Amino acid sequence: MKKTSFVSAAALALSFAMPASAQMSVEDQIEARQAAYQFMSWNMGKIKAQAVDGEVEFNADQMKAAANAIAAVANSGMGALYSPDSTLDKAENTRLKPEFFEQPEKAREVGMNFGREANKLQEVAASGDKAALARQFAAVGETCKACHDNFRAK
Amino acid sequence: MKKTSFVSAAALALSFAMPASAQMSVEDQIEARQAAYQFMSWNMGKIKAQAVDGEVEFNADQMKAAANAIAAVANSGMGALYSPDSTLDKAENTRLKPEFFEQPEKAREVGMNFGREANKLQEVAASGDKAALARQFAAVGETCKACHDNFRAK
Ligand code: HEC
Ligand code: HEC
Repeated sequence: MKKTSFVSAAALALSFAMPASAQMSVEDQIEARQAAYQFMSWNMGKIKAQAVDGEVEFNADQMKAAANAIAAVANSGMGALYSPDSTLDKAENTRLKPEFFEQPEKAREVGMNFGREANKLQEVAASGDKAALARQFAAVGETCKACHDNFRAK
Repeated sequence: MKKTSFVSAAALALSFAMPASAQMSVEDQIEARQAAYQFMSWNMGKIKAQAVDGEVEFNADQMKAAANAIAAVANSGMGALYSPDSTLDKAENTRLKPEFFEQPEKAREVGMNFGREANKLQEVAASGDKAALARQFAAVGETCKACHDNFRAK
């Protein structure tokens, strides 16, 4: 059940055929996807501060909320924000490389990996285990990096 | 149980005493809060298109994901992104009015209203009832507007 719902969410995230919203301009797509990543980054930062670096006292409720936020972004169907004319060679103010559309299997793979690890982050945070959360934070971070290395310009 | 967890999330959202992350610069706070609102706005747009305007075919899974995203933002502890020196008279690139800190009871009230209605949105979306979702979308929208009318510059 859990697994099915994640698989369908991941499929959704990568589906271009069924837009969830009315047609969005390329500018609006770029703004929304950058906002989604920025919002995730803030939440990753909280987990890093509390579970990894220990700079801030560990608070299980805050960790749960942060992981829920990251999973909610991962499950939000961001595929709809990636139209082929939104790459950096065609649009302004974006770092999305054309490779994203030239290597669809790779794009699907990094997207699926991210979705899977983000949903696992939510489960691990719910358990309240700080060391496990630190490990899963690293696993999620790898999937962010894999996408950036492949598809985001410096 | 549900109620308790929401109350504590709301208290968290408005707590300035317990930062979840290490000290953030005012610029980073502003960027993160604008990203959070922008991301919510995209998700509100999906609910409007599918449950209110009917421009896009109703898809209960997409509505659930959108409402989860909005609730996750509402429960993410955005209070940490509102330091008193991040208002428009003191910082760049922000529309936050100083009234947010001059009227703390009002700020708390609009924040609590938003948190309550966003969490209810998540419940209603889980039920799959389109008409109820359209009504709850309107209720959430009222709480966004109340905050903007009081605390966001034009
Ligand atoms: C499926 C690919 C993919 C995944 C997964 C991914 N990113 Fe990104 N990220 C991108 C792309 C592409 C951009 C550039 C977007 C643009 O400029 O239009 C980006 C941009 C960003 C930005 C800059 C946003 C801005 O304001 O311009 C941040 C911060 C970021 N990502 C953090 C993260 C974090 C943290 C994660 C994981 C928790 C993550 N990303 C996962 C592809 C991804
Ligand atoms: C507790 C107050 C509050 C609530 C609740 C609230 N907002 Fe806002 N919103 C603000 C403030 C303040 C700003 C300006 C932030 C800044 O410029 O630093 C803002 C900015 C925005 C922006 C512009 C972001 C940008 O890129 O500059 C959008 C879009 C937005 N809100 C949408 C929404 C939506 C949609 C909701 C509800 C689902 C909502 N807001 C709920 C206070 C609120």
